[in-house]
Amino acid sequence: MEDYRIEKDTIGDVEVPADKYWGAQTQRSRMNFKIGGDSMRMPKQIIKAFAVLKKAAAITNLELGTLDAEKEKLISQVCDEISSGSLDDHFPLVVWQTGSGTQSNMNVNEVIANRAHVISGGALTDTEKVIHPNDDVNKSQSSNDTFPTAMSIASYKAVVEDLFPKLGYLINAISQKSDEFKDIVKIGRTHTMDATPITLGMEFSGYLAQLQHAKKAIENTLPHVSELALGGTAVGTGLNTPNGYADKVAENIASLTGLPFKTAPNKFEALAAKDAMVELHGALKQLAVSLMKIGNDIRFLGSGPRSGLAEIILPANEPGSSIMPGKVNPTQCEALTMVAAQVMGNDVSVSVGGSNGHFELNVFKPMIIYNVLNSIRLLADSCESFTKHCVVGIQPNDLRIKDNLDKSLMLITALNTHIGYEKAAQIAKKAYKENKSLKESALELGLLTEDEFNLWVDPTKMLGNSEK
Amino acid sequence: MEDYRIEKDTIGDVEVPADKYWGAQTQRSRMNFKIGGDSMRMPKQIIKAFAVLKKAAAITNLELGTLDAEKEKLISQVCDEISSGSLDDHFPLVVWQTGSGTQSNMNVNEVIANRAHVISGGALTDTEKVIHPNDDVNKSQSSNDTFPTAMSIASYKAVVEDLFPKLGYLINAISQKSDEFKDIVKIGRTHTMDATPITLGMEFSGYLAQLQHAKKAIENTLPHVSELALGGTAVGTGLNTPNGYADKVAENIASLTGLPFKTAPNKFEALAAKDAMVELHGALKQLAVSLMKIGNDIRFLGSGPRSGLAEIILPANEPGSSIMPGKVNPTQCEALTMVAAQVMGNDVSVSVGGSNGHFELNVFKPMIIYNVLNSIRLLADSCESFTKHCVVGIQPNDLRIKDNLDKSLMLITALNTHIGYEKAAQIAKKAYKENKSLKESALELGLLTEDEFNLWVDPTKMLGNSEK
Amino acid sequence: MEDYRIEKDTIGDVEVPADKYWGAQTQRSRMNFKIGGDSMRMPKQIIKAFAVLKKAAAITNLELGTLDAEKEKLISQVCDEISSGSLDDHFPLVVWQTGSGTQSNMNVNEVIANRAHVISGGALTDTEKVIHPNDDVNKSQSSNDTFPTAMSIASYKAVVEDLFPKLGYLINAISQKSDEFKDIVKIGRTHTMDATPITLGMEFSGYLAQLQHAKKAIENTLPHVSELALGGTAVGTGLNTPNGYADKVAENIASLTGLPFKTAPNKFEALAAKDAMVELHGALKQLAVSLMKIGNDIRFLGSGPRSGLAEIILPANEPGSSIMPGKVNPTQCEALTMVAAQVMGNDVSVSVGGSNGHFELNVFKPMIIYNVLNSIRLLADSCESFTKHCVVGIQPNDLRIKDNLDKSLMLITALNTHIGYEKAAQIAKKAYKENKSLKESALELGLLTEDEFNLWVDPTKMLGNSEK
Amino acid sequence: MEDYRIEKDTIGDVEVPADKYWGAQTQRSRMNFKIGGDSMRMPKQIIKAFAVLKKAAAITNLELGTLDAEKEKLISQVCDEISSGSLDDHFPLVVWQTGSGTQSNMNVNEVIANRAHVISGGALTDTEKVIHPNDDVNKSQSSNDTFPTAMSIASYKAVVEDLFPKLGYLINAISQKSDEFKDIVKIGRTHTMDATPITLGMEFSGYLAQLQHAKKAIENTLPHVSELALGGTAVGTGLNTPNGYADKVAENIASLTGLPFKTAPNKFEALAAKDAMVELHGALKQLAVSLMKIGNDIRFLGSGPRSGLAEIILPANEPGSSIMPGKVNPTQCEALTMVAAQVMGNDVSVSVGGSNGHFELNVFKPMIIYNVLNSIRLLADSCESFTKHCVVGIQPNDLRIKDNLDKSLMLITALNTHIGYEKAAQIAKKAYKENKSLKESALELGLLTEDEFNLWVDPTKMLGNSEK
Repeated sequence: MEDYRIEKDTIGDVEVPADKYWGAQTQRSRMNFKIGGDSMRMPKQIIKAFAVLKKAAAITNLELGTLDAEKEKLISQVCDEISSGSLDDHFPLVVWQTGSGTQSNMNVNEVIANRAHVISGGALTDTEKVIHPNDDVNKSQSSNDTFPTAMSIASYKAVVEDLFPKLGYLINAISQKSDEFKDIVKIGRTHTMDATPITLGMEFSGYLAQLQHAKKAIENTLPHVSELALGGTAVGTGLNTPNGYADKVAENIASLTGLPFKTAPNKFEALAAKDAMVELHGALKQLAVSLMKIGNDIRFLGSGPRSGLAEIILPANEPGSSIMPGKVNPTQCEALTMVAAQVMGNDVSVSVGGSNGHFELNVFKPMIIYNVLNSIRLLADSCESFTKHCVVGIQPNDLRIKDNLDKSLMLITALNTHIGYEKAAQIAKKAYKENKSLKESALELGLLTEDEFNLWVDPTKMLGNSEK
Repeated sequence: MEDYRIEKDTIGDVEVPADKYWGAQTQRSRMNFKIGGDSMRMPKQIIKAFAVLKKAAAITNLELGTLDAEKEKLISQVCDEISSGSLDDHFPLVVWQTGSGTQSNMNVNEVIANRAHVISGGALTDTEKVIHPNDDVNKSQSSNDTFPTAMSIASYKAVVEDLFPKLGYLINAISQKSDEFKDIVKIGRTHTMDATPITLGMEFSGYLAQLQHAKKAIENTLPHVSELALGGTAVGTGLNTPNGYADKVAENIASLTGLPFKTAPNKFEALAAKDAMVELHGALKQLAVSLMKIGNDIRFLGSGPRSGLAEIILPANEPGSSIMPGKVNPTQCEALTMVAAQVMGNDVSVSVGGSNGHFELNVFKPMIIYNVLNSIRLLADSCESFTKHCVVGIQPNDLRIKDNLDKSLMLITALNTHIGYEKAAQIAKKAYKENKSLKESALELGLLTEDEFNLWVDPTKMLGNSEK
Repeated sequence: MEDYRIEKDTIGDVEVPADKYWGAQTQRSRMNFKIGGDSMRMPKQIIKAFAVLKKAAAITNLELGTLDAEKEKLISQVCDEISSGSLDDHFPLVVWQTGSGTQSNMNVNEVIANRAHVISGGALTDTEKVIHPNDDVNKSQSSNDTFPTAMSIASYKAVVEDLFPKLGYLINAISQKSDEFKDIVKIGRTHTMDATPITLGMEFSGYLAQLQHAKKAIENTLPHVSELALGGTAVGTGLNTPNGYADKVAENIASLTGLPFKTAPNKFEALAAKDAMVELHGALKQLAVSLMKIGNDIRFLGSGPRSGLAEIILPANEPGSSIMPGKVNPTQCEALTMVAAQVMGNDVSVSVGGSNGHFELNVFKPMIIYNVLNSIRLLADSCESFTKHCVVGIQPNDLRIKDNLDKSLMLITALNTHIGYEKAAQIAKKAYKENKSLKESALELGLLTEDEFNLWVDPTKMLGNSEK
Repeated sequence: MEDYRIEKDTIGDVEVPADKYWGAQTQRSRMNFKIGGDSMRMPKQIIKAFAVLKKAAAITNLELGTLDAEKEKLISQVCDEISSGSLDDHFPLVVWQTGSGTQSNMNVNEVIANRAHVISGGALTDTEKVIHPNDDVNKSQSSNDTFPTAMSIASYKAVVEDLFPKLGYLINAISQKSDEFKDIVKIGRTHTMDATPITLGMEFSGYLAQLQHAKKAIENTLPHVSELALGGTAVGTGLNTPNGYADKVAENIASLTGLPFKTAPNKFEALAAKDAMVELHGALKQLAVSLMKIGNDIRFLGSGPRSGLAEIILPANEPGSSIMPGKVNPTQCEALTMVAAQVMGNDVSVSVGGSNGHFELNVFKPMIIYNVLNSIRLLADSCESFTKHCVVGIQPNDLRIKDNLDKSLMLITALNTHIGYEKAAQIAKKAYKENKSLKESALELGLLTEDEFNLWVDPTKMLGNSEK
C-alpha cells in the first residue's frame, strides 16, 4: 500500500504520495483528469522549459528587489535539478487537464517549493515551508503567462535543436544525391505519363528546393514564436509584477537558453491567442506536405524490382514480407509518409484549438503544444531515419533508366521547333499505335531525314533551353 | 439607371429594384453582405427546398385552421412557381450572410408575399398587401426551423436524386469491368513492390467493394438527415405553432417530395446542432477517400505508355500536352482526385461549423449546407464523368500484363508451403542479384527439381487458397 | 552492458538482447525506426488483438489439418500469456515503422516462437526451434491480412468495451439532468442573443439527442469494422491458406472474443483500403463535434460567477488560478473540448492515410489504427471524466435564471399571434431603447391592455405550441 | 439551335459554337468535364493572369528573336482585350478538368490565335490561321509552366490588391477602437470566468496584434509565391526555350504587373510541387483562425441585450428574426466566422492537393488555385464587410461594464502582494458563498482594514505592473 501525506490547498485536504514532491493541486489534477494515460503526459520539454522560466523569474525578482537572495538561490537550484531530469518522476500530469495548463504550472511550483524545503533541511510534512509555491515560486507570474512562455521556449528549442539539425541532415543528403546523379539522363514523367527527359539529379534538386523552402518557412515563424508572454500575468496587464519585469525576464530567459527570446510587444495577444503556434505548425505542415511528395516519388521510382518503374534502388534494410520471401519494401518512405499524414491532421487540431480561444485566454494550450512538439519530434526523427536508412543508400538503376529513355516517345518534343507540334504528334501517335520507334515512324511518314532525326532527337540536348 | 421602389421593415425604409419581388430585408442583406460574389449565391436547391416547405406549412396551417384557404392557395401557387425556376432571379443573396439563414428565409417570405399580391392583381408599390411575409408566409415558422428543414430536404434530395444515380453508374461500370477482367492474371503489388499474382478483375472487385461500402455509409446517415426541424420555431419549443403542426407538416413535406421525411423527435438538437450534416458529410468524405484511392490506382496502372506500369490503357479523350505531341493523360482521374481533395477539405469546414454552435442555435448553417451540396454535386458529377469518359473505356494491356507476370520474383511465394520461407527467400534473392529467372536460380541452388518447380510455381494456381 | 545473443533472418545476423523473446526482424525495426520514442509504441491493444488472431489461426490450422496439435497448443499458450500482459516488455516497436505493420506481425511471430521454444524446455540460443515464426506461427497468414485483422479486433473491442460504457455513462447523466431540470424555465439564446423561453431540461435534452445520434452513427460503422481481412494473405487471394480457412478463422475469432466478427466478403478491399477505419473515425469525429458543442455551452452557461451568464453552477474541483485567489474554472469542459479538437485533427490524418493506399495494400495502417485507438481512448476517458467531475454535479442557479427571464425582451414573441410581428417589434424596440420593461412599453404605446399583456405574455406558456 | 463550325486537333474533328473563339481542345474539355457547373468555372483571375503571361512570353520571344514583330503585336493586342474583360465569354471551362490546367492554357492559346486571326481580317472558318495556338501563342511555353505561373500572378495580385487593402481597413478600424476604448476599465475573463480588470482598449489591442501578425505571416509567404515557373516548359528543364528566356520573361511579367516577380531558381520544384500555394494558404488559414477568435469574442461581448455579457453594443443592420420581433443579431460576426470555417477547410484541400504531386508535375493545380483565390476573396470581402457594418459602429455599454466591474470578485488578486494568495482566496470564497462584496467579506474576516482595502483594491491600479 502506498504511503501518503496530507497536503492542502484553498479547497481543502488531499492525500499525496509520501515520497513525491508535488502538492495538493497536482494531486487533484491526477484524480480529476484520468484521460489518455501515461503515454499522454505533459511533454517533458514543457517541464524543462518551466524550469528555465521559473529560474529566470526568480533571478528577475531578485534583481528587481521582490525576492530575497536566499529564496532565489533555492529556486534556481531546484530548477537546475529539473533541467537535469533528476526530478522527472515528480511531474505526473497528462495533457488533458485544464486548458490553461494551470495544473502543470502548479505542479512545477509545488515541486520547486517542496524540494527547496527538503534541500533546506525541512520535511515534506512540515506545515510551514521555507518557500511558498504561489507567493514565491510563482511570484510575478500566472499560469496564464507562464504556460504560453513554456510553449514558446519548448517549441523554439525543439525546432532549432532537434528539427533543424535532422532536417539539415536530410537536406545535405538530398543535395549530395542531386550532385551525384547530375549526369544521369532519364525519362521525365508528368501526369504519371512519360514525358521529356530530365536528369535524376534535377529530380533530386526539386526535392532539395522543396525542403529548403520548407525550412525557410519554418524560420519565418520563429520571430513570432520567440515573443514571450511572461510579464502579462493573469490577463495580459502585468498585474502584480514589478516595474521593468517583462523585459528583464525575457532577457534572462534569452541568456539562460542562448536563444533570441524577447518579451511579447502585446501581452493580450500572447495570452488570448496561440497564433504563433498556429503559424509555426502551419509551416511544419508545409514540410509534411513536401515530405509526402518526396516519399511518394522515391517509393514509386524505386518500385519493382521487375514490374515497377525501378529507376532507383533503395537500400534493403529488413525482410519485407512475412509471406513473400525475398521481398524488399520502401519501409522508410512508409514511415515518413505516415508521419506526414499525422502532421497534416495535427495541423487541424492546432487550428481548431487556436480558433477557439475566448476573451483574455485561450484554453486549448496543452493540446496545442502537445501537437506542436509531437509534430516536431516526428518530423525530426523521420527525417533522420529516412536519410540514414534510405536516402544515403539510394542507387540509380542505370540499365533500366537507359532502357526507359531509349524507348520513350516523348523525345518527339524536340521536333516541335523544327517541324511543328502537329506533325510531331503524328509521328508519336503512329509510333505508339504500331509499337515502333520514333525514328521508324518519322521516316515512314517522310517528315524528316534520318540525319535530321539523329541530329535533332538527342535526349542529352533536351535538358535545357534549346539554344544553349 | 435602375428603377427603385421603397420597401420598409422594422428598421426603416430601403430602396429595392422596382422589378424584383424581394423586399426590405433581402435588400439589406444584399447591401450588408458583399462577400464572395455571384458564384457564391445561396444554392438554388435550398431555395427550391424552401418552396416545398413553405407550401407544406401553408397547407398545414390551413388544415389546422390557422390560415385561410385563399391565402394558402396563393402561397402554394407561388411556391410552385419557385419550384419551376421561373422566379430564380428574385433570390440574389449569398451564402455569407447571417448564420441562421434568416435572410434567405425572409427572401423567400418576401418574394412569396409580393408575388402573391401581384398575382392577386395588386401592385408592388401598394402599402397593404394581401399576404404578409411574416404573419402569413412565415406563419408557424421561424428561420431557425425553416432553414435547417430546407437543409434536410435539399441534401436528402441531392443524395438520392443526383449522387446515388451517378454513383450507381460508376458502381455498375466497375462491376462490369471486374467481370470482364476476371480471367486476366497479373502481378499484384504491395508497398508498390511486385507481389504475388492477382487478377485484374479482383483488383476492380476491391474498388467495387469500396464504393458499395461508401454508398452504404451514406445511406446510413439518411435517417438522421430525414429528421425535420420544422415545428420547433425560434428555439425548438414550437412556440406559435398550432397543435399537431410538427407531425403534420413533416407528413406534408414527405408527401410533396415523395421522400420519407419525418419530424425530428428532438427539435432542440435539430436547431442547435447540425450533426446530421456532419454525419452525412463524414460519409461523403469516406466516398472521397475511396475515390482518391481508385483514381490513383487507375492512373498508375495506366501510366506509360512505355516507361510506366502500363497494364491498362485509358481512353484518349483529348490531346494531353500543349508542348509534348502525342501525349495522352489520365485527365479523368485528375478531375476525380481533385474533387476528392476538395471534399476532404469541405469535411473540415462542415465539422468546424458543426462544432461551433452555441446554445439554442447553430449559426454556421449556410456555410455548412453550401459545402454539403457542393460536395454532393462534385462527387456526383465526377463519378459520372469518370465513368463515362474513363472507366467504361478501360482496356487491359495484355502483352505488358503477361510480361510483368512472367518475370516476377514473387511467384516464389508458392514454394513456402513446400520448402519453407527461408529457402524460398534464398532462391528469390539469388535470382534478383544475378538477374536470373526463379527457375534458374532454384535449380542452381539445388533446392528442388525442375518438375517440382513447374508443378508448384504456376501463377494461375496462386489466385486462391492453396488447396482449392 | 547489455547482454546479447545472435539472431538471424534472411538478411543476416543481428544482436538481440539476451533476455528478450523477439528475434532478428523486431530488432532490425528497433534499429531502423527510431521515430517518436517510447510514448509512440504500437498500441498494446493491437498486440493483444494479435494474440487473439494468432491463436485463432493456430486453432483453425489444426482444425483444417495444416498444423499439428502440439504446435497449436504451444502457440495458443503463448497467445494467452500475451493476452494476460505478462509479455508486454517483449513488444518494443513503435507506430512509425513499415506501413503494413509487418514488423509488428513479425514481432508477435518471433515472440510466440521463441517463448514456445522456452516453454518446451529449449534455450533462446538454440539454432533449431520447435516452432518457426513464419512457417508455423504465421501459417496461412501474411502481415497484409493479420495487421488489418488486428485493427478490426482492437478497434471494435475499444468501441464496445471502452467507449460505449463511458459514453453511456455520460448519456445517462445528461438524461437525468434533463429530467431534473425539466421545470426550470429560462431564457433561450439564439445567435448568442436573448430569445424566447425554454427549459433547462430542454437544453439538456438537445445534448442528449446529439449524443444518442453520435452513438448510433458509431454503431452504424461496426458492421464494416467487423469484416476481417484474415484469409486474404499477401494480396487478398488467400494464397497459402487451406480450403475453408477464411470463414473458419473468423468464426474462431468471433468465438474467442464474443464479438460478431465475420470474414470480409471482399478481401481485396480489406487489404488495399482502410475505409472501415475511415468510416469508424468519421463517426468518432461526429461525436467530437457534438462534445465540442456541449462543452462550449456548459462552460458559457456556467460562466461568471458574477459577470457571465451564470445560469448553471459547475462543481469546483480544484483551485482555478495560480494568481487569482478563489477562482473556479470549467476545467472539465476544457479537457473535453481539447479532446474534441484532437479528434477532429486525427480524422484528417486517418483520411489522408486512407486515401493514399496503392494497389493491393494500404501502407498507412499503423498510423491509422494509432489515431483510431487514440481517439477512442480520449473520447472514452474524457466522457467519463466530464460526467463524473462535471455533469453529475451541475446545479441550476435559480436566482439568476429567474432574473434573466423576467427582464427578457424576447417574451414579446408571444404577441405575434395576437397583434402581429411589426407592432410587437415596436414594443420591444422601445423597451430596449428606453431601458423599460415590455409591459411599460406596450402600455405606453397603447397597443394592448394590461390584462391582455398579463394573459398573453407568460413565459411558462411559451414552451410549446401555442394552442396546447 | 446553336450554330457550329468544325475545329480539329491531333485527335480529330469537333464542333465548336460558331461565334466563339475557342477551339477544339477547349470544346473537348467542355464535353468531357461536366463537373460542378457554371459556378465553378476557372477563376477569371487565372484567365487574366494568363493574358499577362502570354503577352510577356510573346514580347520575350520577340526580344530573343524567336517570334516576329507582327505576331507579337497581334498576340499582345488580344491579351489586352482579355485583360479588359471583353472576351470573358470565351473561357467556359471549369476548375475540374485536367490537373495541370492544360485545357485552360489551350483555351487561352486558342482564343488568342483565333481572335488574332479575326483581327487580321480572317474568318474563324479559315483552315490556315495567321497565328498558331501551339507554335506561336504557346511558344517557349508548356501548360506545365504557364499554369503555375498564372497561379503565382493571380494569387500574388489577389493578396496585395484585394486582401491587403481590406485587411488593412479592418486593422485600422480595430486600431482606432483600441485607442477610443483605452480608458474603459472592465472585467477581464479567463476560462470564460471573471478575472482581473483590463481595458476594452487592451482587448482590442490583442485583436490588432493578431491581425498584424497574420498579415506579416502572409507577407512572409510572398517571396515564394513570386517565383515564376515560366521557362521550365514541360518538365522544368526549359526545353524549347531560347537562351535567357526564363529571366527575361519574369522581368517582363514584373514590368507588366508592377509586382516583384522573379524566375524560380529551381523550376523542378516550381512544376512538381505547389508548396508556395501550401505556404500561402497556411498563412491565410492563420488569418482565418484569428478572425474566428475575434468574431467569437465580439459576438459574446455583444451578447444580450439583457441576459448576455452586453458589454459592447453592435450596430443593428437588419431585423434579426423572422419570428422574434425587435431582435438584433451579430450577423457580421456570423458571416465572418463562417468564412473562417470555410478557409480552415480549404487549407486541408490545398494541403492534400499539394502532397499528392507525382514526379515532375503536380496535377491538383486548378483545385489548389481555386481554393487559394476563394479563400483570399472570402477573407478580403468579409474583412471589409465586418469592418464597415460592425467594427466601426461598436459602442461600449458603459453602464453594464461598470456594473460588472464593481461586483467582480477577482479584484481580490490585488491583495496577493499584500496579504498572500491564501488569505486572499479566503476572502473571495466567503464573498461568493455569502453573496457579499469583497470588502464586506474582508472586513468580516478581519484580514485588513477598510482603509487598506480601499487603497489596495482599486481596479484602475490593476491594469499594469504593480509598481508603476
